[in-house]
Amino acid sequence: MIGRLNHVAIAVPDLEAACATYRGALGATVSAPEDLPEHGVTVVFVELPNTKIELLHPFGEASPIASFFEKNPSGGMHHVCYEVEDILAARDRLKSEGARVLGDGEPKIGAHGKPVLFLHPKDFAGTLVELEQA
Amino acid sequence: MIGRLNHVAIAVPDLEAACATYRGALGATVSAPEDLPEHGVTVVFVELPNTKIELLHPFGEASPIASFFEKNPSGGMHHVCYEVEDILAARDRLKSEGARVLGDGEPKIGAHGKPVLFLHPKDFAGTLVELEQA
Repeated sequence: MIGRLNHVAIAVPDLEAACATYRGALGATVSAPEDLPEHGVTVVFVELPNTKIELLHPFGEASPIASFFEKNPSGGMHHVCYEVEDILAARDRLKSEGARVLGDGEPKIGAHGKPVLFLHPKDFAGTLVELEQA
Repeated sequence: MIGRLNHVAIAVPDLEAACATYRGALGATVSAPEDLPEHGVTVVFVELPNTKIELLHPFGEASPIASFFEKNPSGGMHHVCYEVEDILAARDRLKSEGARVLGDGEPKIGAHGKPVLFLHPKDFAGTLVELEQA
């Protein structure tokens, strides 16, 4: 069912420093920061030949990643995102297997303008999983 | 400098359950478990079209991932691995930029039979980074 790894998201406390590290020491291609007020994050993409790294930084007062930094002040890996062809079919299959979908279970439009769902980390070995309809 | 994302490693407390989740609920292709006594881990690969997920489980008494489970009993994302063409050149570039290489700074032969180095998470926004000479 799952297809490509769309991205790995890394929550970073200092976006400018993280961009400098990925661009400089690691020599990668790094996008300009993009504020996404409706998602409460600023994102930067590190473009790799086969996938991308999404650097996530809180935007605004009520960022959904604020609690992550309370537990991980230095930042860290936040989630993985797998592509699926049909997000409703994926959701129904996962629910029938006993996996918990976060929120109200309805896909939202994610940071890339496509329908996404998040799955409960406790059902995936401690890993927050995003599904994106590619 | 960095090339493809070789893999994302997820440390899992119950390897059989994690394999069942990735094979069943997520419908992915999952390899047979492989014990790597010299690395203190058992690994399973989830094959995705563009990269792979490495499920890591402790093997033996002195597994290097034992301390990870003390902090994260449910498991979680453990490291990302980026490919580089020349691991010694990559190491020297990173050191000149002030990044810390773990261990004695000399590449070891990693779980895939290729030279690898690990970089200090504090220099990469809380993320343990492995470099593998592809």
